[in-house]
Amino acid sequence: MKIAVLGMGTMGAPMAANLLKAGCEVTVHNRTREREEPLAEAGAKRAATPAEAAAGVYIVLSCVSDTPDVEAVLLGPGHGHGLSVIHGLREGGLVIDCSSIAPAATRRIAEAFRAKGIGYVDAPVSGGSEGAIKGTLTIMCGGSEEDFARAEPVLQIIGAKVTRIGPVGCGQIAKVANQVAITGTFMALAEALTLANQAGADPERVVEAIGGGVAGSWILNNRADRMLKDDYPLGFRTRLHRKDLGIALETAREFQVPVPIASLVATIEDALIAQGFGDEDMSNLARFVRQGAGVPGGPMKS
Amino acid sequence: MKIAVLGMGTMGAPMAANLLKAGCEVTVHNRTREREEPLAEAGAKRAATPAEAAAGVYIVLSCVSDTPDVEAVLLGPGHGHGLSVIHGLREGGLVIDCSSIAPAATRRIAEAFRAKGIGYVDAPVSGGSEGAIKGTLTIMCGGSEEDFARAEPVLQIIGAKVTRIGPVGCGQIAKVANQVAITGTFMALAEALTLANQAGADPERVVEAIGGGVAGSWILNNRADRMLKDDYPLGFRTRLHRKDLGIALETAREFQVPVPIASLVATIEDALIAQGFGDEDMSNLARFVRQGAGVPGGPMKS
Repeated sequence: MKIAVLGMGTMGAPMAANLLKAGCEVTVHNRTREREEPLAEAGAKRAATPAEAAAGVYIVLSCVSDTPDVEAVLLGPGHGHGLSVIHGLREGGLVIDCSSIAPAATRRIAEAFRAKGIGYVDAPVSGGSEGAIKGTLTIMCGGSEEDFARAEPVLQIIGAKVTRIGPVGCGQIAKVANQVAITGTFMALAEALTLANQAGADPERVVEAIGGGVAGSWILNNRADRMLKDDYPLGFRTRLHRKDLGIALETAREFQVPVPIASLVATIEDALIAQGFGDEDMSNLARFVRQGAGVPGGPMKS
Repeated sequence: MKIAVLGMGTMGAPMAANLLKAGCEVTVHNRTREREEPLAEAGAKRAATPAEAAAGVYIVLSCVSDTPDVEAVLLGPGHGHGLSVIHGLREGGLVIDCSSIAPAATRRIAEAFRAKGIGYVDAPVSGGSEGAIKGTLTIMCGGSEEDFARAEPVLQIIGAKVTRIGPVGCGQIAKVANQVAITGTFMALAEALTLANQAGADPERVVEAIGGGVAGSWILNNRADRMLKDDYPLGFRTRLHRKDLGIALETAREFQVPVPIASLVATIEDALIAQGFGDEDMSNLARFVRQGAGVPGGPMKS
């Protein structure tokens, strides 16, 4: 299978590497061209522009940072990114966009491709850089059943759980829901553990006691430890989660849904980013609670 | 083993029943005496007051509603509850309190018993009425190692996971932490699913897609369905969780820990209780988001 992969960032590069390992013929392109080099060494072809990368294939996979980047790479006239995919990809082609962007923008972009006889699947992922490297990403897809059927074998290579949620845009909606759902678990866990510690209980034992019950979660199992140690290695960058929350809040406003927890956590993440902690794992929400409670830095221990 | 069980409510009655089934000689007492009858039919003795129940045993287990009730049953002079445990239990006895009350009050009560040579273990539970009936409660304990060693065999009969967190009061602190930790997961999940639905994605598929990843939790696995159906059978009563959050907020104030999510959810639960929904399962936090978003009653379906 021939495939073009656009965007050699933290997520896109390991996706391209996993496609190469699986035997795909991969052409890569990145705005900053040097980032293509490790992939070229691993056997990928390089293309000077998104259009050139798309010209020789039927399937383009993109994974870039935000809505304007996706628009530039897929639809744009050039300007730094070079001529875009829509100027290179032939009729009958398929775009799979793994970027996390607004559902509304996704629908607009997909419509531009549909008008040219090109399929589109939005396929944002969760699982972080670790999941991208190991090929264990959770991938939430939006697109027609026919387009999804073509995208699925590609996505199965880079992810472990691939679900079609519904028509175009629904992958992005599921990603938004994911980013909203995790806010409360992270933040309330930070509150609970700091409170337990300050009130005089060993927070490690508290984690052990409550983790097997109603409070049990992936986040408690995998992130409580970071909060207790006051050490927040990646993980999921606070800055990127805040970007996704921006999309969530915009979508919530569009559809008039009150999201008080997501709004509150967005504000707290803004504070953490302003303090210079944006590149830590988002379990650093515990910093906010600890700061407010006057807990000194370093491992919690009552 | 002889044991007195005080409080034949939703939790205490099935605890007493499980102790009887395990072969204990159980004496029961309840302020409203008729509630003792089903236990008496199952083989329990009845006592007219807490003091009388405690007089013939070395171990007293109490499970009542709130701090004033615990004080009345364990330390009080009478007034409706009858003469209390401290007037009946002999030196060398042990009190196991399974009620959920304030850590600070627990320490005061335990000290009164310690002064009389009586041990004390605070052992609040989670797992709800279902867990009490099945004997699968999670039990969080505070007390000396010696007192815990005496309490543990009793608690293993009524619960599935019994953990000593630390000295007296630490069981209550763990319970507070549990009640705080779950607030964010419930509420943010309600936001996420309502948003997904209103933005046009099938919320059931969203649950399926995100549940295996970072958003995975006991609450998502066991309560998302109630939110989608707009039907909130028990479960964990909103009214009782709000009572526990009151203890949590009081403890947070005492130890100067900011708990913005717990505070916000307490306010929302107040609104739900005022609307007459206090006896539903606390997954009814979804009602708040749905009301705000103008979603009609009944199953969600985009």
